[in-house]
Amino acid sequence: MRLPPADSLDARAARLGQLFADESIDALVVTSLPNIAYLTGFFASAAALVATSEAVHLVSDGRYAAGLEARGREWSRLHTSQLGPGQSYDEALVDIILSLRGLRVGVEASHLTLSRHRFLTRRLAAEGWTADLMPTDGLVERLRSCKDQWEIAILRDGGERLSTVAKCILSKALAGRLEYEVALEIEQQLRRAGFERPSFDTIVAAGPNAAVPHARAGSRRIQPGELVVMDFGGVLDGYCTDLTRTVTAGPPGQREAGLIAQLAEAQAAAFQVVRPGHPPESVDAAARDVLAAHGIGDAFTHGTGHGLGLEIHEAPRITRARPTQSEPLLAAGMVLTLEPGVYFPGWGGARIEDDVLVTEGGADWLTDVPRTQ
Amino acid sequence: MRLPPADSLDARAARLGQLFADESIDALVVTSLPNIAYLTGFFASAAALVATSEAVHLVSDGRYAAGLEARGREWSRLHTSQLGPGQSYDEALVDIILSLRGLRVGVEASHLTLSRHRFLTRRLAAEGWTADLMPTDGLVERLRSCKDQWEIAILRDGGERLSTVAKCILSKALAGRLEYEVALEIEQQLRRAGFERPSFDTIVAAGPNAAVPHARAGSRRIQPGELVVMDFGGVLDGYCTDLTRTVTAGPPGQREAGLIAQLAEAQAAAFQVVRPGHPPESVDAAARDVLAAHGIGDAFTHGTGHGLGLEIHEAPRITRARPTQSEPLLAAGMVLTLEPGVYFPGWGGARIEDDVLVTEGGADWLTDVPRTQ
Repeated sequence: MRLPPADSLDARAARLGQLFADESIDALVVTSLPNIAYLTGFFASAAALVATSEAVHLVSDGRYAAGLEARGREWSRLHTSQLGPGQSYDEALVDIILSLRGLRVGVEASHLTLSRHRFLTRRLAAEGWTADLMPTDGLVERLRSCKDQWEIAILRDGGERLSTVAKCILSKALAGRLEYEVALEIEQQLRRAGFERPSFDTIVAAGPNAAVPHARAGSRRIQPGELVVMDFGGVLDGYCTDLTRTVTAGPPGQREAGLIAQLAEAQAAAFQVVRPGHPPESVDAAARDVLAAHGIGDAFTHGTGHGLGLEIHEAPRITRARPTQSEPLLAAGMVLTLEPGVYFPGWGGARIEDDVLVTEGGADWLTDVPRTQ
Repeated sequence: MRLPPADSLDARAARLGQLFADESIDALVVTSLPNIAYLTGFFASAAALVATSEAVHLVSDGRYAAGLEARGREWSRLHTSQLGPGQSYDEALVDIILSLRGLRVGVEASHLTLSRHRFLTRRLAAEGWTADLMPTDGLVERLRSCKDQWEIAILRDGGERLSTVAKCILSKALAGRLEYEVALEIEQQLRRAGFERPSFDTIVAAGPNAAVPHARAGSRRIQPGELVVMDFGGVLDGYCTDLTRTVTAGPPGQREAGLIAQLAEAQAAAFQVVRPGHPPESVDAAARDVLAAHGIGDAFTHGTGHGLGLEIHEAPRITRARPTQSEPLLAAGMVLTLEPGVYFPGWGGARIEDDVLVTEGGADWLTDVPRTQ
């Protein structure tokens, strides 16, 4: 697994430091694991971090001792420590925060639970720390939403590998196979293509199961002619890829072929709107308008896409406009999915999904696989 | 997938209601998805719930419309609703809470983020709701830690199926195969045995990789004689199972066989201490003492086990005593793993793990697979 080099991490730290002024903070307690991986290149199932404009203090536990030490060696700004015996992460955070006396400290309000916030506040107060921990929202996520060159190279590589896997899978006969057998073959191909693991539980949903957008892969035997939704992706160097194709076992009927063509048209319309400065809602609307014009708008029951990166769902959200929140405008470096889908309960459904990079001038497809049979 | 019957759900709701008095609340906002699944039998990737002593209000989104409606029909105490267009879960929660005017409402402080708590508090205040949302900790988790008869039957069934899978896998030759190929075969066998999905990313870690307790399955080719840790489990009807065996490809050397025998001895010693009324720390100490007596106590770098249920890690924690928190005593109906392991960086490691039910009189093994080659 390639880890981000020190100069990428320096640049990320500098960008984070620039956000501190707007929030009137001098340091940020980071408790989201993907945010920690982004800021340090340290991937673990448990860790905590405090970033100031000068240094990054990272704590993890004994299981990750070797990785922790290696990261500390590779990036001079990083100060690493291991949990003491019986010490909790929150106790370790209290110690780090107390060493920053005089600084204004923020926390990640969308990740820190009420319980952890209460613990930190109480313990700090007992040590004479009187300032509030300032709630902040999505600071590191904002940085993560625009990928740097190092990340874009990985996501391009991932998109190419995923396309190769998809073409291989689409070349195989499906009739008579169980959904989960196809899913396992996809996961095997993902591993062979160099992905570390699937980005999420692979979906292979046939016939009426294809009408359930959150279906996984079950024990249904695929019947000739029925729609089969295959939604899968792999993680490369920590970064998620994501692709969906819908096919039939054997030649598609007229209704099936028509739906897939309409989804491809909706996806192409959405792609046309992807460029810096456009609101994500306009991308969603472009896909939605096409499906509505074909009379199947009501069957499109989810958003058009989502950001991709260290998490399979991250900013930006490509959905309908919401009355109470607005999404940031699209910007160069964003990587997102375009995945219109239609669902007809009891009968079947279809979805087409590809990954897209927002460029200075518009957008590039990161995945390249035929959309129709 | 079998879902809990109405009488089990009634009993769970009644037990939850009994906890309300201790917390001085009349209603609880539940935002943890496993807790929602436990209280309603509704499994989804997004949902929110408010329980009072009379009724349970469950909200989810359009993707889950069919399941939501079915659950509402099957359990009379359940009131279900779907998110409105563009409505957020927190907005829906505000509406439900406002309909409970006069009640004292608690929240799950270990699951609700600071950000969501601030949103709810601000929006409720704007509607004239002046009472605090009372922070509570682990109420539903406390119920979940002691399984009911319906759950125990599933976990027994799961343990038997997992044992069958393990015996099949252990009968196969390993030398020359890639770690991930073995992992995929395990996952295929899990699916064939009726599990819905793996409980976690299957671990197959060979040679020096076996020295890393959090290793997954990579591209290492398994060498004759080296230790191979295989840690896997499946989810049956929503409930997780978990088992580890360590073997060598071909006959084990003296050091390898010795370590595995010592771990089996440590696990057996821990099992002897599992009974209602005993502190979890005493189970951990029993395993730790055996390994220390063999001179490998320092290589045992994690706790002895964890609870199993709707989550792969839940209460109780079977670890060393902690200065700042004490775990509840073991009680009949708890289901937990016993998994001593030893790790020697650069060389290899070994772990043995089985699942155990705490009974009135002691404990039952739920998994039954030979521990040595």
